[in-house]
Amino acid sequence: MKRCIIFSASKIESYKKININICSGDYIICADGGYLHAKALGIKPHLLIGDFDSLAIAPDDDVKTEKYPAEKDDTDTMLAIKNGFKNGCDEFLIIGGLGGELHHILANIQSLKYALDRNAKAVLEDDKNTVEMINCGSRILNKSDGELVSLFAYSPKCEGLSIKGVKYPLERVVLDNAFPLGVSNKITDEFATVTVENGDLLIVVTK
Amino acid sequence: MKRCIIFSASKIESYKKININICSGDYIICADGGYLHAKALGIKPHLLIGDFDSLAIAPDDDVKTEKYPAEKDDTDTMLAIKNGFKNGCDEFLIIGGLGGELHHILANIQSLKYALDRNAKAVLEDDKNTVEMINCGSRILNKSDGELVSLFAYSPKCEGLSIKGVKYPLERVVLDNAFPLGVSNKITDEFATVTVENGDLLIVVTK
Repeated sequence: MKRCIIFSASKIESYKKININICSGDYIICADGGYLHAKALGIKPHLLIGDFDSLAIAPDDDVKTEKYPAEKDDTDTMLAIKNGFKNGCDEFLIIGGLGGELHHILANIQSLKYALDRNAKAVLEDDKNTVEMINCGSRILNKSDGELVSLFAYSPKCEGLSIKGVKYPLERVVLDNAFPLGVSNKITDEFATVTVENGDLLIVVTK
Repeated sequence: MKRCIIFSASKIESYKKININICSGDYIICADGGYLHAKALGIKPHLLIGDFDSLAIAPDDDVKTEKYPAEKDDTDTMLAIKNGFKNGCDEFLIIGGLGGELHHILANIQSLKYALDRNAKAVLEDDKNTVEMINCGSRILNKSDGELVSLFAYSPKCEGLSIKGVKYPLERVVLDNAFPLGVSNKITDEFATVTVENGDLLIVVTK
């Protein structure tokens, strides 16, 4: 797997709560104002992409940039994801993207589905939450990464949903997208296991 | 139509930006800490409902309350919606519910689908956004209520989606939930018209 790390432009109050272990093979993109996060962390991106409507500073001279018109169909994060796919990535870690305006947050969650439909693993992460979408499969959630987990059906239904290692375990239930049944579960064991047999499941871990 | 107004517990910075015209026939419920908003606005609810984990003050003696255990399937807002249905309401205005933690926001958005599936109109509103879900039908959005509108497919697809009176009009397109195409459109006319022929459409108006 080749991993793409995308820095997205939205507020992050504390970098300490974000687990960023950048490996030498990672492909790093900053989506517009996300460049400020990379800069603050001393990380040099391979590419800076966007319409540059949210970047208040000039990028360093040696940073490769791709500028798009503001009047485009893609959000800046989607531009970054598409570029990641073009460069052979099949795993996406999007830093930020959850701390801004509601329509940006919802657009970024939809981007997870875009990646999932193309068989890529994608995660949105900031200092408050880790958000991931899966279909047909399992995920292990470490208690040390956040004790509170909420599960939402992103497709109309999620079938065969199970969760273990939590205060309110579920065993092969059906979750639909009209009833927030899986909100605020607590990880009680060292780690929890979430499994879904069919459907797109949104997993929100609150740090 | 009988309208249910629900005050939900999450931060609202300014009440000035919320359009609350309470009519004599409205049924008013406070979901847990939402009671603080009603109290701040001088509104006496017909019912205060929830597990009372987010209400730091004791309610006034003459306020009817229904207390539920914290270990319940429903969120406090869902309890309020169900109570509204039980009392014959078919229109819901949920004040707040968008300014808190991500999993609460997502749960509240799912509640809109719960109401929609039962043929009720439901809107989430705070000082920053107005969020509504529709299927098969039209909505008129007044520019004076917010100039920025974003459209998201909540069901896998929204077919026959049109929007007029905006910077980027759409005419009978298909929007899917894996591509945030409809983000940050600007209302240019006095009002915009959104129409969807089939599918659950989430309309986010940013104030």
